[in-house]
Amino acid sequence: MAFHLFQEIEEDLRSVEAELNKQMETTHPTITAASSHLLLGGGKRLRPAFVLLAGKLYNYQLNRLLPLAVALEMVHMATLVHDDVIDESKTRRGIATVRARWGNKISIHTGDHLFARALILIAELGDSRITQLLAKASVQMCEGEIQQMESTFNVNQSFRDYLYRINRKTALLLSLSCQLGAMAVQAEPRAARTMKWYGHHLGMAFQITDDILDLVANEEELGKPVGSDLRQGIMTLPILTATVRDPLLKDLVHQKEKTEEEVKEAIERIVKTGAIEESKKVALLYLQKAKKELDHLPDSSVKESFHKIADFIAQRNY
Amino acid sequence: MAFHLFQEIEEDLRSVEAELNKQMETTHPTITAASSHLLLGGGKRLRPAFVLLAGKLYNYQLNRLLPLAVALEMVHMATLVHDDVIDESKTRRGIATVRARWGNKISIHTGDHLFARALILIAELGDSRITQLLAKASVQMCEGEIQQMESTFNVNQSFRDYLYRINRKTALLLSLSCQLGAMAVQAEPRAARTMKWYGHHLGMAFQITDDILDLVANEEELGKPVGSDLRQGIMTLPILTATVRDPLLKDLVHQKEKTEEEVKEAIERIVKTGAIEESKKVALLYLQKAKKELDHLPDSSVKESFHKIADFIAQRNY
Repeated sequence: MAFHLFQEIEEDLRSVEAELNKQMETTHPTITAASSHLLLGGGKRLRPAFVLLAGKLYNYQLNRLLPLAVALEMVHMATLVHDDVIDESKTRRGIATVRARWGNKISIHTGDHLFARALILIAELGDSRITQLLAKASVQMCEGEIQQMESTFNVNQSFRDYLYRINRKTALLLSLSCQLGAMAVQAEPRAARTMKWYGHHLGMAFQITDDILDLVANEEELGKPVGSDLRQGIMTLPILTATVRDPLLKDLVHQKEKTEEEVKEAIERIVKTGAIEESKKVALLYLQKAKKELDHLPDSSVKESFHKIADFIAQRNY
Repeated sequence: MAFHLFQEIEEDLRSVEAELNKQMETTHPTITAASSHLLLGGGKRLRPAFVLLAGKLYNYQLNRLLPLAVALEMVHMATLVHDDVIDESKTRRGIATVRARWGNKISIHTGDHLFARALILIAELGDSRITQLLAKASVQMCEGEIQQMESTFNVNQSFRDYLYRINRKTALLLSLSCQLGAMAVQAEPRAARTMKWYGHHLGMAFQITDDILDLVANEEELGKPVGSDLRQGIMTLPILTATVRDPLLKDLVHQKEKTEEEVKEAIERIVKTGAIEESKKVALLYLQKAKKELDHLPDSSVKESFHKIADFIAQRNY
């Protein structure tokens, strides 16, 4: 993420990082090692950033926003470590996954542990509406993951299935970060709702962009080979769009084992259908919706930041 | 469990069962199937029973106790389904595990899903102290599981290591069930504390008894072959006691692959050391402590039930 977008919360994001590091110190050496490894793997810390920015909308109180920001990043980390077990992933962001290094068992417990620790932070806020929203989102995130698992290599799924999945995979937690950030500082219900929808639309655009980049990004910038969704059989918007336009492509996409040549060929044929451009349009539509939500907010520097973030998502190439 | 002990909450336990069944109906067919399978596998529903009984101590309100009872059973189920992945178990209580039937991936998500759904119920109670206590217990339960994993086949661990593990594995959640049941009906802090300690001591005795039965139970009553701890390398109180008394036994216990003959031999040698009797004494000590806690409570029929439950734990043979 372009960090200049987070200028006004830069210092507090450093506090988030420090607190995250502190949270990784547990009474158990293996969990500490596995969690720290995961944390060092980096990530954009988008969820903490959205919590803090949403908190700026109203009565900014770092003492309430910090635990929330840290907790949401930990929930995100928990899903990642469980997903790596499920996807049997060997690397994430260029470094070995917890699963590759410590095995499935430690990964499951590290995920459970991160989630439960996050819950302690959330419960300490003393606002059970926040706990409820987090719990509901967690339920839906699980459902999305299973849905993704069960729909791999299914070339006949609908766009609606795809949108359902990426909402649960990405948009939900980003949306929640925005909403809870506003709620934690007692923003008016309307502002919290605005942030919820802003985060939703932005999250949808973010995942669609991710799915486009998985096909056409510069591999060095992406940090991994392109085409991983094709290899894993995850049907993304550009892939589904392409198979509608070029139905013969379905056979190749459907094929469970693909050589590097075949992955390359599939990408070329997907590009040729214009599916990339079409998917970019859908992402842009979501970003427009996100920006339109902001109209409900009074003008402020944070509102401007939210605008810039939406513009950035549209043009990011990593 | 001898169900006559739960006579005074019999009807409400049926409501728990009905609500548990309802909770298993999710929007996702695979999760519904896996969760229902787990639920049908049965179990003693000890946690719900303790929630309800503790609720009887004060201002019994089923509308508050029911979601709590159901939630704690779901947390327990979540730990079971993750543990089965970790232990690579094929059966539990005589039927196929979720892992054996649906694989690791579904098991991980089913566990996450159950935990998050339980959290929704807990959050709806609107008492963040309850959420906090549950979160803290969950963290510790994870740590206990990792500790157990890492200490398998370690014949040189201390009794303290063992007590640490069984506290996290069993006593914590039973203790929490008693404590939260009291808290949910606004029992005085002293009564909630009494229930917490009663549950702890009872839970310790319960697990020690389980560990004894794993060696010497009637296999039909136990529903599985004896000696599974020896096979998995889980060092229990009777095993550790026996290796102190007969140090030569360590080699056999330490051996990772054991034939059925060797398991039988190990059990015979353990019995010969008197470790079973010694372990029973330790369990009895915990039960005495549990009963002593009850002195803090005014006389009532529920107090008597708690006494009877403690007496039953000591003599149960399944």
